[in-house]
Amino acid sequence: MALSDLEVLERNEDGIATAISILKQRFGEKLKTSQALREQHAHTTTYIPSQLPDAVVFATCTEDVQEVVRVCAEHKVPVIPFGTGTSLEGGVNAPAGGISIDVNEMNQIIAVNAEDLDVVIQPGVTREALNDYLRDTGLFFPIDPGANASLGGMAATRASGTNAVRYGTMRENVVSMRVVLPDGRTIKTAARTRKSSAGYDLTRLMVGSEGTLGIITELTLRLYGIPDRISAGVCQFETVEDACNTTILAMQTGLPLARIELLDTLQVKMINSYSGLDYEPRPALFLEFHGTESGVEEQIALFNEIASEYGGGDIQWVDTMEARNKLWKARHDAYFAMLAWRPGCQGIATDACVPISRLADCIAETQKDVEELDLVAPIIGHVGDGNFHVSLMIMMDDKDEVARAETFIERLNSRAIAMEGTCTGEHGIGQGKRRFIRLEHGAGADVMSAVKRAIDPDNIMNPGKVVGFDD
Amino acid sequence: MALSDLEVLERNEDGIATAISILKQRFGEKLKTSQALREQHAHTTTYIPSQLPDAVVFATCTEDVQEVVRVCAEHKVPVIPFGTGTSLEGGVNAPAGGISIDVNEMNQIIAVNAEDLDVVIQPGVTREALNDYLRDTGLFFPIDPGANASLGGMAATRASGTNAVRYGTMRENVVSMRVVLPDGRTIKTAARTRKSSAGYDLTRLMVGSEGTLGIITELTLRLYGIPDRISAGVCQFETVEDACNTTILAMQTGLPLARIELLDTLQVKMINSYSGLDYEPRPALFLEFHGTESGVEEQIALFNEIASEYGGGDIQWVDTMEARNKLWKARHDAYFAMLAWRPGCQGIATDACVPISRLADCIAETQKDVEELDLVAPIIGHVGDGNFHVSLMIMMDDKDEVARAETFIERLNSRAIAMEGTCTGEHGIGQGKRRFIRLEHGAGADVMSAVKRAIDPDNIMNPGKVVGFDD
Repeated sequence: MALSDLEVLERNEDGIATAISILKQRFGEKLKTSQALREQHAHTTTYIPSQLPDAVVFATCTEDVQEVVRVCAEHKVPVIPFGTGTSLEGGVNAPAGGISIDVNEMNQIIAVNAEDLDVVIQPGVTREALNDYLRDTGLFFPIDPGANASLGGMAATRASGTNAVRYGTMRENVVSMRVVLPDGRTIKTAARTRKSSAGYDLTRLMVGSEGTLGIITELTLRLYGIPDRISAGVCQFETVEDACNTTILAMQTGLPLARIELLDTLQVKMINSYSGLDYEPRPALFLEFHGTESGVEEQIALFNEIASEYGGGDIQWVDTMEARNKLWKARHDAYFAMLAWRPGCQGIATDACVPISRLADCIAETQKDVEELDLVAPIIGHVGDGNFHVSLMIMMDDKDEVARAETFIERLNSRAIAMEGTCTGEHGIGQGKRRFIRLEHGAGADVMSAVKRAIDPDNIMNPGKVVGFDD
Repeated sequence: MALSDLEVLERNEDGIATAISILKQRFGEKLKTSQALREQHAHTTTYIPSQLPDAVVFATCTEDVQEVVRVCAEHKVPVIPFGTGTSLEGGVNAPAGGISIDVNEMNQIIAVNAEDLDVVIQPGVTREALNDYLRDTGLFFPIDPGANASLGGMAATRASGTNAVRYGTMRENVVSMRVVLPDGRTIKTAARTRKSSAGYDLTRLMVGSEGTLGIITELTLRLYGIPDRISAGVCQFETVEDACNTTILAMQTGLPLARIELLDTLQVKMINSYSGLDYEPRPALFLEFHGTESGVEEQIALFNEIASEYGGGDIQWVDTMEARNKLWKARHDAYFAMLAWRPGCQGIATDACVPISRLADCIAETQKDVEELDLVAPIIGHVGDGNFHVSLMIMMDDKDEVARAETFIERLNSRAIAMEGTCTGEHGIGQGKRRFIRLEHGAGADVMSAVKRAIDPDNIMNPGKVVGFDD
């Protein structure tokens, strides 16, 4: 699939009409079919064109989701779960039409189990809402993708973000989930324990399955104590390679970095311009350390030592929440800074991830491509995990530029995979990366298809995403 | 299934005979059919009677395993992977006969990627052999079940041990695996990266599947830097409840405990007697802290403060490797200490795991059961994870005692499950816990069966373990 193509699946017109009429009776005003709402529920944050669902049901409880799924199962109609619609790979599109299940009203925090360091929530709770709620408990949930996404959606895409280098991704931080199966039954994927050897790992099977095996209606997540001290800072380097090598050595030393984010020169210029900052126009690492007072002191001293070996400049450390928030807001606004830099462009996100030992090479070769293909494409990366995003800023009406972007993406993903890496560290496969699944997984793609067929034999769960029946 | 029963599956006599004659030609002396070797390969560490395979093939490479599986697939003959045979739940038994694939000669360490903090190995490498090999690199692999198990077997059962409270289990520490599928093809389960969102999590699907979905022939594992300082110590309490509450508070405080092991009074007496030690005859926590010099000092101070709130006695900390080894050897010898305590008894391991907030209650109710049912059953636990082992020391020719043991196990596992826990924190399901899968997972057991049927439609991969086709 090229950037401009989009798979269209066969529609089951009769089934869709019947299902909507049944669901309309059952859900009344909670079911909507207006064009505006359908468009909103197929909205994707990137270049992928919208494919609208035929109706949207606003679910308020697990039973609502079960009811929609049962009706859709009977009439073989697709169901597409919808959280905040911030998928970067067309996760909420409806290539065969069907019913979008909006879980935003399922936004209750059911239980905070402070002794167990976990929380039970509904899937529409966003990461910011959860942390606001937790503020007085001294606990927090660390996973922070760019958007203020719903936690159900984050589990579905196996999301991560800037803190993953220390706290892991949704893979490590979902304890258990309630999931509505394609036949309308529900399962609890696991006990609420820190570990288990009781059979297949259904939690990890569902995390990252992007709604293609079931719909998440409840999550138990791990929490962490807010550290006594948090220090953030920015360290700048002559080259991206120096910044990467600093990262590698810091990781290898076992330094418990909480955040280590690379920005290349272009990205630094963009955030300077957008956020009114005055960093030097050269590569930067945005850093954060968590720990006790003396622990953070120790980490800072060790990091300074490592960074200076690679010519890292003096680091200004900030400890107040206000100063830290300013720094990380600039980092999180990188996407908007890009759009402002080249008005009218469409941002296309990439998401390569490689073993950290290959990171400097992979980025260097990628930067050569950016230059050779004459693209405007800043780099920002969760480099402690070997994950970096080249953001292509494309004028979509310039056919030649679009074609060069396609070439770039093809080369980047193939390069990452050849380096024992992956085409997606955290965004998911969705529609946009379907064509790389076979390249990356070989016969593993057949195992994924077999699992999909076994659990969802009528292919009603978010069809057209991740894997098909014969991928 | 009661303790004394054992499921027997239908044997495919013609298929087995044909497969053995083909494999004999292919493998020559690498295939054995002697009674002694077959008995050894059905050996289980516990009460479960042996069910012998019909032949054993000593594989030396992935291609050997593929060859055996292809022949067995063609003739619908079971294959049972064999590492060190230390399964506690009958994992290596052959209830329908078939071919045992012994991977002990696949014991090569293929690559140490120090920069990436990972290592690529064959499945027959044991945890001790790996750590011996790594000694000069400054790195180590933390997962330590009681036995010196093979790492392939540890991945297959999702094993953990005393360090899991800090470093996680095999679930968190397997990066990727090569697996031979039931049709003889191989897959790589994932990229060699710290994270990925590229489709279903095949690594976690295979970890803990106990050889029922495929056979592991290569593993990439996460490594950790050996800490600057390691301190171990023993803290004793008046009651098990005090020891549990100390554990809960230490965990909640975010203390990065490397090990926290509970021994009840009976277990302390046993190791005193077996290992010539002189701990007071009351409950004990065996502890270990990892970190920098000042970090460990800080942890010790904080732990002392917490323990003293619950009447924890003075802790004697030991730092030398010799003193630490003596302490942990006594802990790891607990099983032998038990057998020596009651000569002629059979040890039956249990493996309940609950949310840590329920741990004190769960253990208290369980101790009442031990008393009421008049059993000899010390308790030892990885309490930081909420996981504890009641070891039943049973005279197997005493029918009444066996019946009381069955009642005890039934109650224990039901209690753990009712407390949002699991019947197995780390030993796996195997044959021994099959009857608890439905109680614990409800409809989730159907999802497991569906996955099993999809990936292994002829049920040749370690049949009779974990889930059946219709569990």
